[in-house]
Amino acid sequence: MIIEVATITVKPDTHSDFEAAVVKATDVFKQAKGCQGLQLHRSIEDPDIYQLHIVWDTLENHTVDFREGALFPQWRELVSPFFVSPPSVVHLSAATKRFSF
Amino acid sequence: MIIEVATITVKPDTHSDFEAAVVKATDVFKQAKGCQGLQLHRSIEDPDIYQLHIVWDTLENHTVDFREGALFPQWRELVSPFFVSPPSVVHLSAATKRFSF
Repeated sequence: MIIEVATITVKPDTHSDFEAAVVKATDVFKQAKGCQGLQLHRSIEDPDIYQLHIVWDTLENHTVDFREGALFPQWRELVSPFFVSPPSVVHLSAATKRFSF
Repeated sequence: MIIEVATITVKPDTHSDFEAAVVKATDVFKQAKGCQGLQLHRSIEDPDIYQLHIVWDTLENHTVDFREGALFPQWRELVSPFFVSPPSVVHLSAATKRFSF
């Protein structure tokens, strides 16, 4: 299991439309091989900046199966009109278990 | 509920000691007002970079109660020996619910 963290800066005053587009895009990610789920977060310090966290079974499910497949253009068509620039993406793997207090 | 995302670059060859220190530090965060839990993640692209995700009830639980309280130096004593530089921190709030497929 890995987490894709995409940092996305959106155009001012497009926040609710962008958020609705991400919700709509869940129909795309549902079809993606190895995609376990996602959640959109928004920066408190800079409200034009979002972090989309997407959980995949493997790195290749994102970088190969999704990015090189037919679903990627569907995703980008929904959300790229709101982008100021292409998202920056990092991939994380768990280094500890999740601690809940 | 907010997520603190601390990006931490550690010195090479200190990974297992750093990870053990974070696990030990859960005893500190357990005592912190409003701290719901945490998980340490590691960058796949650059294994010297970690992201520590800490969930707090409110922003002020982190920025005021924790950072200005007696627990902060205990946390830093455990982990700062491994830091290349001070962590960069952003705070996120949920912009959508969590979608699970």
